[in-house]
Amino acid sequence: MARARLRDLGLRTGLLPPGPLNAITDVTGVRVGHATVVHDAPSVARTGVTAIWPAGSDIWTRAVTAGFHVLNGDGEMTGTIWIEEQGLLAMPLCITNTHSVGVVRDAIIAYAVRERVPMRWLLPVVGETYDGWLSEAHRFPVTAAHAVAALDGATGGAVPEGCVGGGTGMICHEFKGGIGTASRVVTAAGAACTVGVLVQANYGVRDLLRVDGVPVGLEIGRDVVPSHREVPTLGGSIIAVLATDAPLLPIQCKRLARRATVGIAWVGGFGSNSSGDIFLAFSTGNRVQTTANLSPVQMIAPDEMTPLFQAAAEATEEAILNALTAAETTVGREGRVVHALPLDRLQETMRRYGRGR
Amino acid sequence: MARARLRDLGLRTGLLPPGPLNAITDVTGVRVGHATVVHDAPSVARTGVTAIWPAGSDIWTRAVTAGFHVLNGDGEMTGTIWIEEQGLLAMPLCITNTHSVGVVRDAIIAYAVRERVPMRWLLPVVGETYDGWLSEAHRFPVTAAHAVAALDGATGGAVPEGCVGGGTGMICHEFKGGIGTASRVVTAAGAACTVGVLVQANYGVRDLLRVDGVPVGLEIGRDVVPSHREVPTLGGSIIAVLATDAPLLPIQCKRLARRATVGIAWVGGFGSNSSGDIFLAFSTGNRVQTTANLSPVQMIAPDEMTPLFQAAAEATEEAILNALTAAETTVGREGRVVHALPLDRLQETMRRYGRGR
Amino acid sequence: MARARLRDLGLRTGLLPPGPLNAITDVTGVRVGHATVVHDAPSVARTGVTAIWPAGSDIWTRAVTAGFHVLNGDGEMTGTIWIEEQGLLAMPLCITNTHSVGVVRDAIIAYAVRERVPMRWLLPVVGETYDGWLSEAHRFPVTAAHAVAALDGATGGAVPEGCVGGGTGMICHEFKGGIGTASRVVTAAGAACTVGVLVQANYGVRDLLRVDGVPVGLEIGRDVVPSHREVPTLGGSIIAVLATDAPLLPIQCKRLARRATVGIAWVGGFGSNSSGDIFLAFSTGNRVQTTANLSPVQMIAPDEMTPLFQAAAEATEEAILNALTAAETTVGREGRVVHALPLDRLQETMRRYGRGR
Amino acid sequence: MARARLRDLGLRTGLLPPGPLNAITDVTGVRVGHATVVHDAPSVARTGVTAIWPAGSDIWTRAVTAGFHVLNGDGEMTGTIWIEEQGLLAMPLCITNTHSVGVVRDAIIAYAVRERVPMRWLLPVVGETYDGWLSEAHRFPVTAAHAVAALDGATGGAVPEGCVGGGTGMICHEFKGGIGTASRVVTAAGAACTVGVLVQANYGVRDLLRVDGVPVGLEIGRDVVPSHREVPTLGGSIIAVLATDAPLLPIQCKRLARRATVGIAWVGGFGSNSSGDIFLAFSTGNRVQTTANLSPVQMIAPDEMTPLFQAAAEATEEAILNALTAAETTVGREGRVVHALPLDRLQETMRRYGRGR
Repeated sequence: MARARLRDLGLRTGLLPPGPLNAITDVTGVRVGHATVVHDAPSVARTGVTAIWPAGSDIWTRAVTAGFHVLNGDGEMTGTIWIEEQGLLAMPLCITNTHSVGVVRDAIIAYAVRERVPMRWLLPVVGETYDGWLSEAHRFPVTAAHAVAALDGATGGAVPEGCVGGGTGMICHEFKGGIGTASRVVTAAGAACTVGVLVQANYGVRDLLRVDGVPVGLEIGRDVVPSHREVPTLGGSIIAVLATDAPLLPIQCKRLARRATVGIAWVGGFGSNSSGDIFLAFSTGNRVQTTANLSPVQMIAPDEMTPLFQAAAEATEEAILNALTAAETTVGREGRVVHALPLDRLQETMRRYGRGR
Repeated sequence: MARARLRDLGLRTGLLPPGPLNAITDVTGVRVGHATVVHDAPSVARTGVTAIWPAGSDIWTRAVTAGFHVLNGDGEMTGTIWIEEQGLLAMPLCITNTHSVGVVRDAIIAYAVRERVPMRWLLPVVGETYDGWLSEAHRFPVTAAHAVAALDGATGGAVPEGCVGGGTGMICHEFKGGIGTASRVVTAAGAACTVGVLVQANYGVRDLLRVDGVPVGLEIGRDVVPSHREVPTLGGSIIAVLATDAPLLPIQCKRLARRATVGIAWVGGFGSNSSGDIFLAFSTGNRVQTTANLSPVQMIAPDEMTPLFQAAAEATEEAILNALTAAETTVGREGRVVHALPLDRLQETMRRYGRGR
Repeated sequence: MARARLRDLGLRTGLLPPGPLNAITDVTGVRVGHATVVHDAPSVARTGVTAIWPAGSDIWTRAVTAGFHVLNGDGEMTGTIWIEEQGLLAMPLCITNTHSVGVVRDAIIAYAVRERVPMRWLLPVVGETYDGWLSEAHRFPVTAAHAVAALDGATGGAVPEGCVGGGTGMICHEFKGGIGTASRVVTAAGAACTVGVLVQANYGVRDLLRVDGVPVGLEIGRDVVPSHREVPTLGGSIIAVLATDAPLLPIQCKRLARRATVGIAWVGGFGSNSSGDIFLAFSTGNRVQTTANLSPVQMIAPDEMTPLFQAAAEATEEAILNALTAAETTVGREGRVVHALPLDRLQETMRRYGRGR
Repeated sequence: MARARLRDLGLRTGLLPPGPLNAITDVTGVRVGHATVVHDAPSVARTGVTAIWPAGSDIWTRAVTAGFHVLNGDGEMTGTIWIEEQGLLAMPLCITNTHSVGVVRDAIIAYAVRERVPMRWLLPVVGETYDGWLSEAHRFPVTAAHAVAALDGATGGAVPEGCVGGGTGMICHEFKGGIGTASRVVTAAGAACTVGVLVQANYGVRDLLRVDGVPVGLEIGRDVVPSHREVPTLGGSIIAVLATDAPLLPIQCKRLARRATVGIAWVGGFGSNSSGDIFLAFSTGNRVQTTANLSPVQMIAPDEMTPLFQAAAEATEEAILNALTAAETTVGREGRVVHALPLDRLQETMRRYGRGR
């Protein structure tokens, strides 16, 4: 059966309406690129790099405000110490596998050198989740060229999901995981504001998987669709990148990022010990010229954050589900198989619980 | 209809088994006391104080390890700066209404003076949620004597829930809220460990309320049971106190506290702007003699935290639901009414979604 | 010998120029009030309350941006959980002794009720240091009326220093401590910006005391001026409140607050375990109407923070020294004596090291 | 004049005694290795890698407790998200230049693969400061082989200081900076405990440089020894690694790390905006078997932290000064020169202020 997005299946979650693409790219200016690395020799690779540009190439000199939150820290996102301090992001960021964070990080610096970006030094933002069960991560299949390809290939519009880019080798709730995205549109401070989320989903156990509250993981158990392991661990991770055009201060971006936890909880995650659950949020509603002494920005009223919080939670939830419905069954190193979430059974289960068509 | 606990209704949530009392007092040594303050003159009071002793009276000299987390900070918990720094809790703590935090805080010091506790100074831990919609909070009905009564009256065993102590005037998902508790027993590091949670639940909107994934808030809408407000706001707060006998370091208590977010999300909360969602976790599995130069403690392996995390999320979820099923319809200042969650309708709704009996 | 300010003695520290008053009140709109509580019956009290208004009475509806930092957390500052979350301060704040934080906190709420401040609830900011060596703190001599008096009596202009308000019973580097203030004027973002600091100084050991690098504490040893204790402990605390008219975001206020550590280090503090070293910074350069959906604010360029950082460090240093040179020898409970720093010996010592006149 | 350590010059700072080596290697088991990269073709390189092993090769399976603190975050230290969460360090760590963090990070993973370390994945700790003024950092002269060489070459004993390893191209207070180390021995919890510090010092302005309180930077001004820039900026960074054999919990390691700020302040730093001031502390006094379900550890009493705090501050101060007295005048890219701190003038200045011999 062809893979699909959750809403293509007649299913939905949440109460708020999505944007036109139901993707992080609904936030104007945001671009996404994937470099997918799949080969069986000289090493078995099921990996890649996903790049996110918060804005056009002027991002290098016109920062967006940003903040981040960690639900559980068995993971890495470089560059966050400076984001915590300064609250600005003036670069594209990348997500890849755990053991390739370094090469991708330095590649972003080399990319900036190539682009003759005016800078003193650069502290790139690179997140990761681990794909070593399917991919020979210890053989370092990702190169600087892959990072450059993801950066150069980034576009607006619909975002490829599932087994692409950094999501290629991911596993989520014991089904095949990967990249997913979604968005919500809410009214905040009197204006329509979009919150878009992109996740690289690689976490969770089968039993806890829920779709719109329905215990799908119990209904489509390991007896129905095998898990990838005899003894499933609770490991894995999830990176969430949240974008909004609402004008947020850095401190408010951090608050927004924290709501990714709620979306993950709704799908059935709780931040297991071996999970690196790191969330970065940025606002294109405030741009800061890096050469200006003083920049006018806007602060949305604290109370106006509430609809944005709900949007962030809902978009994160649906982004994960889109990763699950898009990702395909994958065979990796040593013949290991991770099965996709079967869409027909998903629909059938949801129907039994009164959802969908 | 008489009020009940969730499981008395034939309903349940979560996958893990509760302890014998399904209460925070399942953690050996933990005691809870309530002082409930209800009168209509000279002011209208629907308020009170709830006290939690992490252990017996030796708590003043044999600290437990502790940590805390804030989901959303429109609230107060005094004493947390020292907990963040030191990771120890050597006192009972109290929860009350927002405008009585001060009097209760100083009352704990006076209590320690009365008890001739050896100390240089004291930095008491007092949390709060706001009950000013039902209670004339601005007339300060809580006194030091109420705090002392809650402290003196604390016991182990079953914990009164609903409209008691600090929970007397609370509102949750537009139903009457209050105090609730629950527990889970899991195997961690080869031993049976208990995680108990007590909440003072005062947050949330109707639409998002879920019980075991069932959209109860949509099914029992404002047309069925009126909300307390014409225009419901997203305000309110929740304090969660998590206790465990698993031997946790302070840093691990903090991690445990963070999982309260997951339980709240499962019920339908996401930390709205005006919410003070503050979670304190302590471990009776490590006791530290405050006069010792060097104290032996145990560190549970990071990976062994995972079942405790799930337990914390599940117990928080059920504690909130117990607050909702226990709390009774309450009339407060200016004749204002907050309706209880109707238990028959809850059961009927759950049955329609295939849950319960 | 009459007490004085450091510069009145012909001494100075730091490289940057102070403002006209060399006080926190050099930041336009900031007001300070003291209620000093000194009596020998029915209890021995050497205590009080100091109130700081970040601005005029419009502070209740036009917040300033704010942030805080903890060097060492054996102390209390209520209200900081909400400041951390929201980054705004819309109230006056108070500093008092450790055991009176509660009564002062609730008194600020009652004050707001009296003033008919439009609010839902209030989360007051009250800091403390411990004066129980001189004052019978356990007998709770501070009342709500003292807090009101400090709030009502606040003015701009020169700030009384030494044994006044919350500083009445304080001890610093084994000399008599208390309230001190200082300011610096720097160019940031092309404009003259003022950073003013007020401290309640109650920390430190004699040996480490330095004035402009000169080891004054070694030169004026315990053999010259007795310490207050046979076995001096390293206890005590310092609260620092930093004000600036530079337009800072909340995240930048937090950064500014962190620099109080540097000023304290220059005087000889390092944050001993039993010290509550808590620093709050606010910016009057950004005012946020609490009823507005969207507020224009300005973000000073990160690089422009550097002169402000130096100003914060220098003003903190001099504020502590002003507390020491202003505070007078004090006799307290049980006849205990804390000696003032002798100004003639200070001048003589500094001259020997080539400083001053 | 030959370079020297501060104490070789008859100078000293602080009140506490150093260990036998006055180096981080006074903490038993700690090893340090440098790979120094200096060449003029094909690129001009004045850079390198410094590796620190917290213990022997059993570190991979017997973690030390750890914590970190950021004074100012314009810098990078990878791996800190997991340290913040878990409080353990089970790897050697490296320090290098800003643009080589990635290659060194991934090299540590490859090193662990080579060593057949049992692991699922690795989140290496790599810190940095920027050497691009002297070295063509944008041409990426550091390779994985350099990291391996630093790791393989690490030893106990005296530590080479100044222009070595990661410190090769550093600039400090407008003099040549680099690697420096120092230690202190104090009694804590009844036992002699060592605190050792290693810094990579690359921060600060001339005017603020102080040695034992003496304003050396003003006395040896830019007219005496030229600065490296016409218009000195306040940029630069400092990484400090603190080791102790006192048995600290993770939360206590974090507290210890925070005291590096005090040592830096004493030398004249205050964390300028463009500075990445990141401090990592670990305790060899608690070892945690990574395969054990439950590990016995010891918690030193909070009050016993005080002498360790002073030791951390003093050792950081002297480590920076040792970097300055050890580093040699260096010529780098485009003929740029950074002058060493002249030792004879330093001694002469100190003598004039009554210090040294």
